[in-house]
Amino acid sequence: MIEDISVRFLDNFKDQKLVSPVMIEGLPGIGQVGKLVAEYMIHMLHATKIAEIHSIYFPPHVIIEENGVARLVRNELYLHHTDARDFVFLVGDYQSTSNEGHYILTDQYLDIAAELGVRRIYTLGGFGVGHFVEEPRVLGALNRPELREEIEAAGVVFQRDEPSGGIVGAAGLILGLGAMRGIDAICLMGETSGYLVDPRSATSVLTVLSNLLNVPVDPTQLNDRAAEMERMIEGLIEGERLQSDEELSYIG
Amino acid sequence: MIEDISVRFLDNFKDQKLVSPVMIEGLPGIGQVGKLVAEYMIHMLHATKIAEIHSIYFPPHVIIEENGVARLVRNELYLHHTDARDFVFLVGDYQSTSNEGHYILTDQYLDIAAELGVRRIYTLGGFGVGHFVEEPRVLGALNRPELREEIEAAGVVFQRDEPSGGIVGAAGLILGLGAMRGIDAICLMGETSGYLVDPRSATSVLTVLSNLLNVPVDPTQLNDRAAEMERMIEGLIEGERLQSDEELSYIG
Amino acid sequence: MIEDISVRFLDNFKDQKLVSPVMIEGLPGIGQVGKLVAEYMIHMLHATKIAEIHSIYFPPHVIIEENGVARLVRNELYLHHTDARDFVFLVGDYQSTSNEGHYILTDQYLDIAAELGVRRIYTLGGFGVGHFVEEPRVLGALNRPELREEIEAAGVVFQRDEPSGGIVGAAGLILGLGAMRGIDAICLMGETSGYLVDPRSATSVLTVLSNLLNVPVDPTQLNDRAAEMERMIEGLIEGERLQSDEELSYIG
Amino acid sequence: MIEDISVRFLDNFKDQKLVSPVMIEGLPGIGQVGKLVAEYMIHMLHATKIAEIHSIYFPPHVIIEENGVARLVRNELYLHHTDARDFVFLVGDYQSTSNEGHYILTDQYLDIAAELGVRRIYTLGGFGVGHFVEEPRVLGALNRPELREEIEAAGVVFQRDEPSGGIVGAAGLILGLGAMRGIDAICLMGETSGYLVDPRSATSVLTVLSNLLNVPVDPTQLNDRAAEMERMIEGLIEGERLQSDEELSYIG
Repeated sequence: MIEDISVRFLDNFKDQKLVSPVMIEGLPGIGQVGKLVAEYMIHMLHATKIAEIHSIYFPPHVIIEENGVARLVRNELYLHHTDARDFVFLVGDYQSTSNEGHYILTDQYLDIAAELGVRRIYTLGGFGVGHFVEEPRVLGALNRPELREEIEAAGVVFQRDEPSGGIVGAAGLILGLGAMRGIDAICLMGETSGYLVDPRSATSVLTVLSNLLNVPVDPTQLNDRAAEMERMIEGLIEGERLQSDEELSYIG
Repeated sequence: MIEDISVRFLDNFKDQKLVSPVMIEGLPGIGQVGKLVAEYMIHMLHATKIAEIHSIYFPPHVIIEENGVARLVRNELYLHHTDARDFVFLVGDYQSTSNEGHYILTDQYLDIAAELGVRRIYTLGGFGVGHFVEEPRVLGALNRPELREEIEAAGVVFQRDEPSGGIVGAAGLILGLGAMRGIDAICLMGETSGYLVDPRSATSVLTVLSNLLNVPVDPTQLNDRAAEMERMIEGLIEGERLQSDEELSYIG
Repeated sequence: MIEDISVRFLDNFKDQKLVSPVMIEGLPGIGQVGKLVAEYMIHMLHATKIAEIHSIYFPPHVIIEENGVARLVRNELYLHHTDARDFVFLVGDYQSTSNEGHYILTDQYLDIAAELGVRRIYTLGGFGVGHFVEEPRVLGALNRPELREEIEAAGVVFQRDEPSGGIVGAAGLILGLGAMRGIDAICLMGETSGYLVDPRSATSVLTVLSNLLNVPVDPTQLNDRAAEMERMIEGLIEGERLQSDEELSYIG
Repeated sequence: MIEDISVRFLDNFKDQKLVSPVMIEGLPGIGQVGKLVAEYMIHMLHATKIAEIHSIYFPPHVIIEENGVARLVRNELYLHHTDARDFVFLVGDYQSTSNEGHYILTDQYLDIAAELGVRRIYTLGGFGVGHFVEEPRVLGALNRPELREEIEAAGVVFQRDEPSGGIVGAAGLILGLGAMRGIDAICLMGETSGYLVDPRSATSVLTVLSNLLNVPVDPTQLNDRAAEMERMIEGLIEGERLQSDEELSYIG
């Protein structure tokens, strides 16, 4: 009988002792902001994959990778080790396809966190505002009021009732369910239109997060990607303007 | 493994003995009528929160409260103590997202009622009529025919086959499943358009309910809110009339 | 914990021994044909209710009956006793709201049938043809080829691959799952438009079924209801024709 | 209590020992390509049915077969025996109706494969390209990179990230879940428009597969069916062109 969720730690991780580990969740969501930040950090810090998570609550398909090899959609854990502290990243292809699955998966993520000795989790996401934002702010949410001062000092903005629709999925449930287990959790949300993948918003979140974690990460490549996307979008807008001018010249 | 439903009684409630308790359910529904009434009573009577209910059948998100603190969506129990009788209010953010969840949650609500010694439950809701109602009546439904005389005497109207679509969710299932456990249950439904949150309808239900419970509750603030909403709606209609006059004056 | 399905036999039925019982299923479906036939037979034969079935797979609401009493939506069993044979009717408000629920409920119906000693089940339904049918035929399906001769002799028509979409819900699954338990099952489907409740189609099915069961049932009231509906529909068509003539007279 | 999935081996199969069996999955999917290939091979090779699989995750209905006999929708296993090797075909009416069901059913298929001693599975499907394809290529995916050389040599094309949407359902999950059990699995996908049942695409897949299996299968009948469909489609297009010409002649 297939397990609802299976967590498989890789051999390289067996019996490893972590030092004051902090978890960073960056699963898919609005503007893919959280995913961009967490995967960028994994890339830049050369973090090591330590586990794979599969679940019947994920969409029922496989992804084709290089060499034509198919693999189940999944979530993954990566580890970045420093002398001061260990960092565990939770990333992946998808979140749950069902409402109940969101709760059950998040509970499993918290089981893993507890098992690894994690006492604090950062969850990352986007905050959809419906229009393009030049200098995206980073909004925050907490699961214990005492955390606010520290987070606010790092430049994170708190607005009552924002996001008004709440925080959906793992980025939110980790705060809610984490509080019940005594695990601190902070959600960092970059402002974003909500229409496109948003590396600009991700850069804002990255800056704040690397300060909070005291882990310097060079944002140049993410910045470049943001600049490239902005050029592309400007090109599209310019193209539309030109076309619209042309159309007017037929009339005038 | 996460529980499907978790009920956590707060420390202030431990081992408290209730006197002939009556339960009042006011979860979200048509016109938010039940929610308005129950939350207004909790507010006016300074009832004390005694329990929180979480469930994987609720939507998978958190709500941001003051100080940026996120909490799981939930249902809550509040207690209002009088010398004659205790009153337990069941309120909350959401009902179940799935059909099966409605049954399972309601069964849990009845477990709680039974455990607290509740012998009668009032469930509150709206009765959608599709048009604005100036003086909303309160319609009733019961789970034992012998209850009718008392409820009718309080001004509640009974119409066969109304609501024709039945009563959906906890307000209805508490009657149906309650009957099987020998718990009396009465549903009070305020007439409402079904399009907007309706404090006017809530006032009607409040008047009837506070009579039935013999708990006086000053309806002034709810009345004020209803009056304010009506002014706002009139303003919108007047605005449309003016605009329509203006448009006509262009033509004339 | 609430049961997924609960079957409660009424006190009047306790320890009753049935004689060669046959079951007749008439749950809601296309044109409500099966429901009309089974409920009409229950009414005309003064069959006695012997059980109620509730389930979390039914829609989560209650129905308001006379006196304002609300009851859970449910399925019911009725018993008609004759010296030669007992007849058990399975009727109700709804079928399952989920795919899986259809299988689980039908399995339960067959558990009941087996427990009561039922060796044959008739399932009743409509066969949607997309247009009005003056003299609806009765189509059949079986779960054992040896049954065909007897059923065909009663005037039932067999057409390969019809209905082409298969038979959905309990009327079909009772045949499929019944075969695995060695219970004979025959589905009788009255041709019907598929757009309206169809007492004319029900009359056709009733005639065939009462022959097969050797239980005479006077079809007059069902015929009357069909005639009434036909007059009503003709009235609507006539009304439209008149209106259309009038509109033309404006033009002419 | 009904099982979520039931696998029933037929009596003819009891205690049969298989020789190095290979499994071929051809369940319904895009263009019905996999289903066409597997069912055609079963037909041409006179393979014998050895098992039936039923499940509450399949749609809740029965299918009418000849003689008016209804049967549950199902999946089936067929066996083709050769001296060198045994071939087990997995075919059927439907795949799961729910996301979770896809995982649970595939896990069951792999249980069966393991039990029969299967070490390699071919899964068959269509690869939707959105336009008609005259000479459909066969794309591949694997669950172990070492398999690629052999499959590529048989004319199968590998394109990174194709299909970009991944492979949905059993054809994909058998690769993903199979890898975890050490069962080799190869997916062969015929290019197809995605709009119609596509015997032309099936012919391409059949040619590749029968080479890989070293089982010659005469493709004539499948080719004929493809040619017939193509004539029919051309007829439709011609018909539309004629009609469009006629309409123009009214104007001219």
